[in-house]
Amino acid sequence: MNSLDYFFKPKNIAIIGASHDPGKIGHVIMENFITSKFKGKIVPVNPKLGKILDHKVYASIKDVPYKIDLAVICVPAEFVPHAVIECGKKKVKALIIISAGFHEIGNEELTKKLAEAIKKFPRMRVIGPNCLGVMHLKHGVDTLFLPSYRLERPHNGRISFISQSGALGSAILDWASLKGYGISKFISYGNAMDVDEADLLEYLGKDKETKVIAIYLEGVKHGRKFFEKAKIVAKHKPVIFIKGGITEGGAKATQSHTGALAGSVEVYKAMVKQTGMINATTMEEVFDYARVFDREPVPKGDRVQIITNGGGYGVLATDAVLQHGLKLAEMTEEKKEEIKKNCPPYAVIKNPIDLTGDADNKRYKIALEAVISDPNVDSLIVILLFQVPTIDSEVIEVVQEIRVKHAKPMLVVSAGGEYSEMHKKALEKEEINTFSSAFNAAKSLKALTEYYLRRNR
Amino acid sequence: MNSLDYFFKPKNIAIIGASHDPGKIGHVIMENFITSKFKGKIVPVNPKLGKILDHKVYASIKDVPYKIDLAVICVPAEFVPHAVIECGKKKVKALIIISAGFHEIGNEELTKKLAEAIKKFPRMRVIGPNCLGVMHLKHGVDTLFLPSYRLERPHNGRISFISQSGALGSAILDWASLKGYGISKFISYGNAMDVDEADLLEYLGKDKETKVIAIYLEGVKHGRKFFEKAKIVAKHKPVIFIKGGITEGGAKATQSHTGALAGSVEVYKAMVKQTGMINATTMEEVFDYARVFDREPVPKGDRVQIITNGGGYGVLATDAVLQHGLKLAEMTEEKKEEIKKNCPPYAVIKNPIDLTGDADNKRYKIALEAVISDPNVDSLIVILLFQVPTIDSEVIEVVQEIRVKHAKPMLVVSAGGEYSEMHKKALEKEEINTFSSAFNAAKSLKALTEYYLRRNR
Repeated sequence: MNSLDYFFKPKNIAIIGASHDPGKIGHVIMENFITSKFKGKIVPVNPKLGKILDHKVYASIKDVPYKIDLAVICVPAEFVPHAVIECGKKKVKALIIISAGFHEIGNEELTKKLAEAIKKFPRMRVIGPNCLGVMHLKHGVDTLFLPSYRLERPHNGRISFISQSGALGSAILDWASLKGYGISKFISYGNAMDVDEADLLEYLGKDKETKVIAIYLEGVKHGRKFFEKAKIVAKHKPVIFIKGGITEGGAKATQSHTGALAGSVEVYKAMVKQTGMINATTMEEVFDYARVFDREPVPKGDRVQIITNGGGYGVLATDAVLQHGLKLAEMTEEKKEEIKKNCPPYAVIKNPIDLTGDADNKRYKIALEAVISDPNVDSLIVILLFQVPTIDSEVIEVVQEIRVKHAKPMLVVSAGGEYSEMHKKALEKEEINTFSSAFNAAKSLKALTEYYLRRNR
Repeated sequence: MNSLDYFFKPKNIAIIGASHDPGKIGHVIMENFITSKFKGKIVPVNPKLGKILDHKVYASIKDVPYKIDLAVICVPAEFVPHAVIECGKKKVKALIIISAGFHEIGNEELTKKLAEAIKKFPRMRVIGPNCLGVMHLKHGVDTLFLPSYRLERPHNGRISFISQSGALGSAILDWASLKGYGISKFISYGNAMDVDEADLLEYLGKDKETKVIAIYLEGVKHGRKFFEKAKIVAKHKPVIFIKGGITEGGAKATQSHTGALAGSVEVYKAMVKQTGMINATTMEEVFDYARVFDREPVPKGDRVQIITNGGGYGVLATDAVLQHGLKLAEMTEEKKEEIKKNCPPYAVIKNPIDLTGDADNKRYKIALEAVISDPNVDSLIVILLFQVPTIDSEVIEVVQEIRVKHAKPMLVVSAGGEYSEMHKKALEKEEINTFSSAFNAAKSLKALTEYYLRRNR
């Protein structure tokens, strides 16, 4: 068993600083484990004793009569070093220190004391301090101390997320749950006094439940180590990388935030390129890339066919494909003929294919089937404008049926009001990636295509 | 009265090709005028006579006993030239030809016949053919033949939109209504056989109800004319310009679509720059710019102050501000002191100001008041992360109260799930511009700042 496994799949856990007061962090974390249906024992530790949420409280972890795999510490900073030592003596395997008040606020003396405590027990792995900790809902692990009406928990999925910033990480999870994107594991690792971003990246690289890794960093603890691990992981699993502090002012801001030395922009850019990670600039990009890498099959090449029922959107999509350095597919005559003979004469069977405003579900079916089976086409951008009354919900089934039969990326672009949104949500439920603009669809398709063409070269 | 006024504020209107069949375009348009509470007479014209939606039908426009300002033609293409002549004889002031089937499908003979008919009545202005026509809901004008359950109509506002593409235009309106952005006038002008994009731009430039103009073009009919008009209008009113066909492939696609010769990318780029229009690349940008120009006051300079309750978002916002060529404001010591003495010692009062995760409504109020009244600050990016339980709905009032007292742009960045979305909607209702990423907020702020700094130079 990997030593980090105990963070994600512990048997029994203890919460040191579990609280009787529902407003306190130590209470919210207790609640989380219970709500997430954690299967092992949940042991609250607090000198006040009694019961918290029906669980017997122990005064100290040393009194606990069970083996504890994971302990979560959320006592005030000054009590943390002592708690760490007690956990070490108890042979706890993994420790998450939520508490803040160390290096990040300039408290170097306490930081030193904590470092010494951690060093005494080299086999006990530690995440934190100053972090949100770990969420792995499939196993009932959830140390995020924000209540679920504020921070909704996303459903289980194949994207895992490492974040140096707690606030950013929590906004991300909340957003993912709104959009219906599945998350496997989330880690906010704070000051990284033991487990750092490189360890986590390596772990997720090997984790079978994780298909895509996304990572937000402000600074790297051990540059070389991270570089080497990233290079290995990115070879077989997509790693989406977003860096805070890529401008001089941003780098200064990271020092007040995580205390990270951001390093030069050029060094980071070179690192991303050399490791083969996928660079993202905004949180929207992180999401768009993550879901596209998660759900789309591997493209065989960079030739994109566009299909639309609105000419203007077709034009913008063409611009977007070419601006992002992808190619316009040139379909075989045979497949074009297949569409032509089943479409009215004013439909334009080029690239883009403009099925025109009166296209119905059937016309889409004919076109999609011909396009996706064309050997000259590597991926598809399908524009569905629901403002016209000739297409309806049935077109979702059409898209889904054709998509599952062929291993080609197919992104849907649709923009509009309630009616369109309703259909986009239905498409997303079928794990079909939808976008409001062709520009963002093409950008994501470019990231996907570039990654796999480079990897398979 | 300007001759184009009759398109937007006609007294009586006639619909030539009004239909008894609810599925037909000529019926939907009748319905639109009735639903939009058009105040003048609505006269259906159709040889079948009888009544349509309780309105007496006339066999020909020449039989109509009233003066008609605006006639809408939606008969099959071959009957259009005759209908135009009849309208001319009736002294109709303005004509919208919805019908398609002319130059755009290569029917040059019929196009020539139509051109001759139009030429005979130089005082009658014509929009179309092959278009959606005009929407000006304040006056009850709505020739868009798409039913409102498909294409929701936005509420009345100060943004007007000119679109060469009908499908794109309708998606835009539908989207605007979902997002709650107000629209004054919308024009899809199709083949532009008489009224073209330059005429419409000039008209909206003078229109007092229009504060911001957005325009989607694939090609320009009369290059010089458009250039001159755009230059004049953009001097006193923001014109957001999006061009379809800016790549070679995109330009080719425009030929199959609107038949427009797209011209070289360089020529367009130079034109946008020289005219002072605001260039947008995606439809999201068009919207973001439009609402920011609509709602925000004129910035006095390019110094931006960032306020956050999440460090990571502050870092990303700093990067975004600097990447877009804006400056980080350096607040006066006095104002910084005002915040410091009312905040806990771990709050970071720099740029970004990090009020930290436990900031409450009051801390935001103190910080916002100090920042907005600081002479060294020209505009604000306010990050509100609702995942933490210390801020709630009250913060919306705080933001709104402070905002209305000071004429400085203030954009809000917030990301998350249902709870965040609910608060963003409430902010938008107060006409506060919200964004999911600091990157897009900074991009819009840059467009706003650049436009006014250049204009006022």
